Amino acid sequence: MQSNPDTAGPLYLGVDGGGSKCRVRLRDERGAFLGRFEGGTANVYLDFDTAIRNIRSCIGECLAAAGLPESSTARLHLGLGLAGVSTDIVATRVASQLDGFAAVKVTHDAEIACLGAHGGQDGGLIIAGTGSAAVARVRGQTTPIGGRGFIMGDDGSGARLGLDALRHALRAQDGLEPHTGLTRDLMAAFHDDPVAVIEWGRSARSSDFGAYAPLVIRAAAENDPLGLLLVRDAAAAIADLGRVLGRHGAERLALVGGLAAAITPYLPPATLALLREPMFDPLEGALLLGGCPLPRAETPQ
Amino acid sequence: MQSNPDTAGPLYLGVDGGGSKCRVRLRDERGAFLGRFEGGTANVYLDFDTAIRNIRSCIGECLAAAGLPESSTARLHLGLGLAGVSTDIVATRVASQLDGFAAVKVTHDAEIACLGAHGGQDGGLIIAGTGSAAVARVRGQTTPIGGRGFIMGDDGSGARLGLDALRHALRAQDGLEPHTGLTRDLMAAFHDDPVAVIEWGRSARSSDFGAYAPLVIRAAAENDPLGLLLVRDAAAAIADLGRVLGRHGAERLALVGGLAAAITPYLPPATLALLREPMFDPLEGALLLGGCPLPRAETPQ
Repeated sequence: MQSNPDTAGPLYLGVDGGGSKCRVRLRDERGAFLGRFEGGTANVYLDFDTAIRNIRSCIGECLAAAGLPESSTARLHLGLGLAGVSTDIVATRVASQLDGFAAVKVTHDAEIACLGAHGGQDGGLIIAGTGSAAVARVRGQTTPIGGRGFIMGDDGSGARLGLDALRHALRAQDGLEPHTGLTRDLMAAFHDDPVAVIEWGRSARSSDFGAYAPLVIRAAAENDPLGLLLVRDAAAAIADLGRVLGRHGAERLALVGGLAAAITPYLPPATLALLREPMFDPLEGALLLGGCPLPRAETPQ
Repeated sequence: MQSNPDTAGPLYLGVDGGGSKCRVRLRDERGAFLGRFEGGTANVYLDFDTAIRNIRSCIGECLAAAGLPESSTARLHLGLGLAGVSTDIVATRVASQLDGFAAVKVTHDAEIACLGAHGGQDGGLIIAGTGSAAVARVRGQTTPIGGRGFIMGDDGSGARLGLDALRHALRAQDGLEPHTGLTRDLMAAFHDDPVAVIEWGRSARSSDFGAYAPLVIRAAAENDPLGLLLVRDAAAAIADLGRVLGRHGAERLALVGGLAAAITPYLPPATLALLREPMFDPLEGALLLGGCPLPRAETPQ
């Protein structure tokens, strides 16, 4: 069956906006794929005006890519999941900037990931990437857990793995604890110069620390005692998030993010028993948020 | 015996320069007190030019306070211990900016504290304040340990105590661990609003985190389980520093800084056995560095 975008029915557009890019996807009222576009950053906390401008620009480009006139804007039901939407106040402020659409629903990036992962059903989502965060969506109630950022939280994240490993490496360099293969490798990356580590650390962002996470993961796989300790600590932090999501009624969990696959083998059986592969991606969750029917298997993503 | 400052003999001037102030003290060749002065910040890492200007200004004011002419500068043997002198290169750069003196010796603030604490004898010094650091001075060899700063180090410091307590409070608020009296008190300080903690933490400096250390110390004294855990961890980090100073030959240790008294009861017997009350303050250490004889008991400080 061929969909005909050029009718007067509703159109659904999902927006997944983050610190590095903004992705949008367009579907018709039957859930058939019409178009997509990918543009610049859309973190409303870091830069509100740029985020709104990039979101508007992505929507326009996506309509054009689907061969739809600008006037189709009034038919669009938007669902947006954006990094930096930490409160309802921020969500309302974003929605107020997006006029001229049929409907606008705004939430944070974790919630659309959760919606997508469970195809709109109840469940919980844990993000283990550069940072960490979790969210439960159960009986219409959304509960964010963690997500406190690099300084105040992010237990079980790649950034904390990298930071903790470097802190241990500096302690080992001073003789405050034994060196391991991992601490030697880390110090070697800085020519065995602790001052170089500190200078680097003064301006390093969480993603810079996260860049050392793969080294820690590999060390753990090779039974390095510090690597194992740190990865097990990270897995315990992820398990803690899963346990709290369970207490909020989530009976199935999705684990996503750059660290997800690497940390899964270290999770306890109780967490593993609840884990499910994500059904759809966060963009599909954004479409669901806007009221779009679930995509049919035969439609392209 | 009355000293006569107006002779042609050498004069000794110690400089203790830190992030909040610069203190100087002047003694004659017999170690008799001649004058002192306290001026603005002298952290050569944070602001080199201001530090040099403030040091010069303090020296001039101190000579004037002692009733000595400006020409006395050429008789001055300077010993300087400055925050931010992390390498010999920095020390040499500072010395090169201080011309017109009889002699100039420059080191970091921890070393003059160590010199002063042990009256110039061999020993080790541990600083447990907002940050933490240690130094051993044994058989002419100076070995710094730790002192890696808030992000990369500072185990056993007030800033880490405050940060760790706040991280636990946020975890407790999410149900990731049990609340204790300490975590409740901390959250109450932020009106039980995790977002307020995070917003505050984004711009908080290490001293801001350190401001919560007394709350942690008090909780430990009242047997709060988290307070005890954190203070014992901090004490273990201080003990680690002491152990490494011992391996570098330090047979007596001084523990100084704003957290020193509070953490002492939690130190293991092996550390306590090596602890000695500081004999003199860091300024006296700076004077010793410049070659000044030890102060006589009857001279005012």
